[in-house]
Amino acid sequence: MQDDVSTAKIRDLIDHRDLTSLAALVRGLSTNRTVRVLSELPLKEAAVVFRLLEKNMSLKAFEELDQPTQADLISQLSRSQVLDIFRSLDPEDQTWLLDEVPSKVAKQIVSSLDPAEVEDTMNLLGYRRDSIGRRMSPQELRSNPSETAAGLLERIGAHDADNDILSEIPVLTTDRKLVGKVELKSLLSAPPETQVGDLMVIDPFYSFTYEDEEKVAREILRHGELIHPIVDSEKRLVGIVPLLDAARIDYQAAEEDHARAGAAEPLRRPYLLTSVFKVARSRIVWLLVLGISATLTVQVLEVFEATLSQKIALSLFIPLLIGIGGNTGSQAATTVTRALATGEIGIRDVGKVAFKEVRTGLLVGALLAVVALIIASLVYGIDIGSVIGLTLILNCPIAATVGGVIPLVAKACKVDPAVFSTPFISTFCDATGLLVYFMVAKTLLGL
Amino acid sequence: MQDDVSTAKIRDLIDHRDLTSLAALVRGLSTNRTVRVLSELPLKEAAVVFRLLEKNMSLKAFEELDQPTQADLISQLSRSQVLDIFRSLDPEDQTWLLDEVPSKVAKQIVSSLDPAEVEDTMNLLGYRRDSIGRRMSPQELRSNPSETAAGLLERIGAHDADNDILSEIPVLTTDRKLVGKVELKSLLSAPPETQVGDLMVIDPFYSFTYEDEEKVAREILRHGELIHPIVDSEKRLVGIVPLLDAARIDYQAAEEDHARAGAAEPLRRPYLLTSVFKVARSRIVWLLVLGISATLTVQVLEVFEATLSQKIALSLFIPLLIGIGGNTGSQAATTVTRALATGEIGIRDVGKVAFKEVRTGLLVGALLAVVALIIASLVYGIDIGSVIGLTLILNCPIAATVGGVIPLVAKACKVDPAVFSTPFISTFCDATGLLVYFMVAKTLLGL
Repeated sequence: MQDDVSTAKIRDLIDHRDLTSLAALVRGLSTNRTVRVLSELPLKEAAVVFRLLEKNMSLKAFEELDQPTQADLISQLSRSQVLDIFRSLDPEDQTWLLDEVPSKVAKQIVSSLDPAEVEDTMNLLGYRRDSIGRRMSPQELRSNPSETAAGLLERIGAHDADNDILSEIPVLTTDRKLVGKVELKSLLSAPPETQVGDLMVIDPFYSFTYEDEEKVAREILRHGELIHPIVDSEKRLVGIVPLLDAARIDYQAAEEDHARAGAAEPLRRPYLLTSVFKVARSRIVWLLVLGISATLTVQVLEVFEATLSQKIALSLFIPLLIGIGGNTGSQAATTVTRALATGEIGIRDVGKVAFKEVRTGLLVGALLAVVALIIASLVYGIDIGSVIGLTLILNCPIAATVGGVIPLVAKACKVDPAVFSTPFISTFCDATGLLVYFMVAKTLLGL
Repeated sequence: MQDDVSTAKIRDLIDHRDLTSLAALVRGLSTNRTVRVLSELPLKEAAVVFRLLEKNMSLKAFEELDQPTQADLISQLSRSQVLDIFRSLDPEDQTWLLDEVPSKVAKQIVSSLDPAEVEDTMNLLGYRRDSIGRRMSPQELRSNPSETAAGLLERIGAHDADNDILSEIPVLTTDRKLVGKVELKSLLSAPPETQVGDLMVIDPFYSFTYEDEEKVAREILRHGELIHPIVDSEKRLVGIVPLLDAARIDYQAAEEDHARAGAAEPLRRPYLLTSVFKVARSRIVWLLVLGISATLTVQVLEVFEATLSQKIALSLFIPLLIGIGGNTGSQAATTVTRALATGEIGIRDVGKVAFKEVRTGLLVGALLAVVALIIASLVYGIDIGSVIGLTLILNCPIAATVGGVIPLVAKACKVDPAVFSTPFISTFCDATGLLVYFMVAKTLLGL
């Protein structure tokens, strides 16, 4: 990418309150550069720059920002500016923004607008959160099998919509049912009088409005469609999802899963621009939940306090054993959470997942046990070596199964598997690991 | 998505060796359904189905498969089939496949082909792995500012390339330097004699061939370009990256980061189709590394064995404290790894990252310490409560800083931060956490 206009220069002008020079500078930027400047500045300073832009440019630049930045910026602007911006957005972007801003702000926006203005948006909001229906773009340009290539090309030229939406046109029957999709390229290369019905891809992929947005987005990316038709239960076209929106949905989902697998909430803005306070906030809740649920491990250890004081060497291996147990559990959870997110598996597969994880855990546990038995026996004697080896063989399948099944349980309880999994799996694996460890030790060592 | 052809039916026919019925069944499927069947079947059975397809269909279906499946399938086919398929692919897909298959197979393929056939591919392979140069598609159709809209439209219609590649055309000067990009939609809506120079987007985004593929892919997705131009150091166009390829690069990167954050290697195929053996293999290496490096914690505890035997209650809190330390570290690592992957931060920011994490850790640690002090003091007395509280205040900033800095160190050593981070951070945080804990305990309790 090109070198940037110095954001340092802009921050300097803001610091010196030199708004006249700042206005001159930022009004000279292209849309792309303006967007970059707005994304890279801390929020308050981005808002200052934004207010200095000419109205047209500000609307254009706003559309190009990512949603979290849009939502944050909205919070810094006056009510009339907010309404101007909101009116300039496409329905699906309006929906997205309403989902992102605090619900109080969303209500204010909607109540300030004429119902007719936001009809499309309200329609989208009528679909369940996380369903693809909520993420559709309207597609007003449709064709029918008997239209000519020349006729459709002329309509495309006259139609006011973005380039990407027009690269594939859905073809409908007279009762609005989806029968095909025609590529702009085929229209250009065909003789003008060819009928669309002879050029279209017959029976293209489509999704129903109620399908999960992440799953549909993955399918779109897999098939590489520029435009994915969304239909109602009668197979009538109600909207489309362009490839870019699919990529966006998929990216946000992956970011969220990733952050939550690391036991933190995703940050809304770039890391270095997020305040220490906000970073801490994204982490503290998880740590508290983990900390409080980890008191379970304290209780388990209390039960075995007498055993521990008889054989103090047993305490040496606590971190190692729970480390391996916890990691086995989180490996399984990571794989299953991702498979759930991409729609490869569902709640119905709980038996298959458990069976697979028990066997994987046994295999992994047996391998680790052999290594541990040899090393620990050499250093600490055969009795400690056997305790550790047997604990690993027993505990790895338990940890893997718990780790694999908990995301499915979360899904069945309608909780985000990634959210629910992390604290429960580590607590569960730690506590059961300790139980297994001390029971094995008591039995083998006769304590 | 539509209901599927029953893969159960197909597996049944394979089990009964009824290849005649199977051939009849699979040859009746559309490309889309064939692709789905091939993706959903276990590898060996997918290869059986693949060999039964008509040649044209097999080439078409192969192109639509994801790369890991392609590479796995290749390993099951005869040499002449492999060459047929390879010849039918675009240069960037050939490059991708050569990167995916074992290097022995890649060499066989390349040596069996005429050098002229694979010239484009060999050019791509000349770019550094992980650079965007390696992922480019050739773009043969270019325009110049003085061409007319009608003229370019005619050339687009006659040009043999995919729809998505033709939706935006790069505009070059006579010495091949990139000056603009013109949208198909603008060409259609303009009067036929308008010059491309008046319709094009001037000074569009572009990237250099050597830039990091993940970073460029993120930028493309952020800006929503259908076609992203790639230039050499003289700003001469050498290729393009379509939006879909950017989404693909980004998706694979996110999958890999995600799996590795969960301390496992990414699975190449869907979870339920992957054998227990392969799942175990994707996990065992990490567990061994973790297990062996966790012997460090055993050594730290050995040093404090005398302290432990004096005050056995101290051992009760080991899992809780290392759990919180480990999680604080992995939260920081997750955030920093992702920020690195998206290009938000670089190695140069190590100071900023450390400073931010120290402060975040202190804030988080102080909050946790207050909670722990109150709860632990009530249950176990003020002395144990103070030890735990003070340990948290001291250990959280250490863990957060280690977690934040290690990915940058990994990057500086040219190792994938996600790979390197997980085992080191947990071992480091566990061991330093124990050290801090026992030193605090010895000091406060006078042991």
